[in-house]
Amino acid sequence: MGDLQIGIAPASKHRDAIGLLCAICLAAVVLSGSVRAAAGQATLNPMPSWNDGAAAAAITTFVSEVVGQGRPGFVPREARIAVFDNDGTLWTEQPMYVQLAFALDRVRALAPQHPQWRSEEPFKSVLVGNLKGLAAGGEKAAAQLVMATHAGMSTAQFERIVRDWIASARQPRFKRLYTQCVYQPMLELLAYLRANGFTTYIVSGGGVEFMRPWTFPTYGIPPEQVIGSTIETRFEMAGGQPILMRLAALDFVDDGPGKPVAINRVIGLRPILAFGNSDGDLEMLQWTAAGPGPHFMGLIHHDDAVREYAYDRDSQFGRLDQALRVADAKGWTVVSMKKDWNTIFPPLPH
Amino acid sequence: MGDLQIGIAPASKHRDAIGLLCAICLAAVVLSGSVRAAAGQATLNPMPSWNDGAAAAAITTFVSEVVGQGRPGFVPREARIAVFDNDGTLWTEQPMYVQLAFALDRVRALAPQHPQWRSEEPFKSVLVGNLKGLAAGGEKAAAQLVMATHAGMSTAQFERIVRDWIASARQPRFKRLYTQCVYQPMLELLAYLRANGFTTYIVSGGGVEFMRPWTFPTYGIPPEQVIGSTIETRFEMAGGQPILMRLAALDFVDDGPGKPVAINRVIGLRPILAFGNSDGDLEMLQWTAAGPGPHFMGLIHHDDAVREYAYDRDSQFGRLDQALRVADAKGWTVVSMKKDWNTIFPPLPH
Repeated sequence: MGDLQIGIAPASKHRDAIGLLCAICLAAVVLSGSVRAAAGQATLNPMPSWNDGAAAAAITTFVSEVVGQGRPGFVPREARIAVFDNDGTLWTEQPMYVQLAFALDRVRALAPQHPQWRSEEPFKSVLVGNLKGLAAGGEKAAAQLVMATHAGMSTAQFERIVRDWIASARQPRFKRLYTQCVYQPMLELLAYLRANGFTTYIVSGGGVEFMRPWTFPTYGIPPEQVIGSTIETRFEMAGGQPILMRLAALDFVDDGPGKPVAINRVIGLRPILAFGNSDGDLEMLQWTAAGPGPHFMGLIHHDDAVREYAYDRDSQFGRLDQALRVADAKGWTVVSMKKDWNTIFPPLPH
Repeated sequence: MGDLQIGIAPASKHRDAIGLLCAICLAAVVLSGSVRAAAGQATLNPMPSWNDGAAAAAITTFVSEVVGQGRPGFVPREARIAVFDNDGTLWTEQPMYVQLAFALDRVRALAPQHPQWRSEEPFKSVLVGNLKGLAAGGEKAAAQLVMATHAGMSTAQFERIVRDWIASARQPRFKRLYTQCVYQPMLELLAYLRANGFTTYIVSGGGVEFMRPWTFPTYGIPPEQVIGSTIETRFEMAGGQPILMRLAALDFVDDGPGKPVAINRVIGLRPILAFGNSDGDLEMLQWTAAGPGPHFMGLIHHDDAVREYAYDRDSQFGRLDQALRVADAKGWTVVSMKKDWNTIFPPLPH
């Protein structure tokens, strides 16, 4: 609350109503970050999992500039668009993308209904646990896998399948639910941005309908602020009821140059802040960097093999090479997980 | 404000700050509709351009139920999704879709750079004002027209072209700007819904980038709440700067069965209120009607040849036949422009 102190001695018969109203209003204002912005300082550190350093300072300096009414960098609330990659930026993407783990689990679960899979690639490799064999199948194998596990059902059915899986599947190394392998510093950053009037979008190569069932409880990001890859869906009447059928055909890959295309199509505004961690995020960062007003570009660098994983140029998942070179050349903020974060994952519920 | 009366006699030295804060807070609460919801009644009619009748009553009854905390039909704010067709639902679509008028004007403007158009269909028909000849070209001619006038430039260039055109082009019969040929009762409905915590989306067969430059000043609907048809765009670096190029290829037609598909892809939530005016809106209305909680489906029926236009089954633009039969059978709300609206267009600025 900064310097603001409130003293009220209402003289009317409505004192309780007024007190309640003021309390509610005040809470709304505090939540909206207006008081903090007006007071020009925060009494609590909004991002305690970030160590003091250049990365944290760059973020808070940028946000102060953007929300500071009358400052040269002021950006109105409706234009405070922040976009975040998901895999490797908001949650762990090792030892494989979570959605791939989901697809492999689905192949195992569906195998009894598809006996031919025991002799048919890429399913055979999945069923015997030969991930190298799966990788050797390349994009074609990946597409077959996605179509066999993500299509041929309604959107409502797929949502139930995802909800069931995400409620119990665990990351193999940390033995946590995948939704508990999210980065605590990024949760704090998302909340800090929203408290300062930003709208926080996910812009991920992952499937949009794979993410939406859990992004709100996990990140506070509602369905309409999740952008991702899509497969074709078709409106059908089934027994007099309309359904949307998920078809075995790719619609849009929200990765690399697809990210700015999707941002433009869905949001229609250029982000002023973007965070990624791989070469698949480069074009989104470039698109953000080309905006006319203030803008912030950040890359998460996975350099902490002890607490999470260390990888960049040679990783199968989340390869980071060219984007890191561009970031260095342009002075974008590169976040070292090892040095900039004092905590990786959120505490587990008791 | 209902019964609430506010009297404050602050005793502290902070009286001005408190007064200001309370005023701001109160304004926020009023804008959010909470006070109205709490008081259970409005002292001002939020939709003065609607005549008393079944249509207006159905809308206000639905909204009261949805926002009434503790009522069986209560819907939390984040799920109050309302979708509106645009052409014929929010603004006039006669004597032709506004975007078609834009395309014809663009052909005329670009013709000097394309001398071959004088002998090449569908451009020849456009240039000599032979709209029957254009219509005879069917979908192929329409696609050629769109691609020649809507593609081959960056998204930023197209936005400027649209802004310039919409600022001066006029509807031929009413001699108003097209953005002044919007329906005043629908502006009031949009504002009423937003004041009650709804998010109001446009879901139109029109091009999303044709609409976004003017939907916020016209309807209060920001870019990210506009869903429409799209053409392919491609991320390119041009002189070191990233641009999005609009390509001469259709991406998605947001009409008929495409509407629920797009709603699912972009919003990821099922609407609880939908308004349309043509058969192209039927699937969107059916999708809304199939929701598990309370839902409202409305059709605007253009039956006022004196003040606007009268058309349905046989119209070239905004044909309404099957959707009207389904609406009658299912008891959806059919709004008669003639009987339900006492005003059609907003007053012109002085």
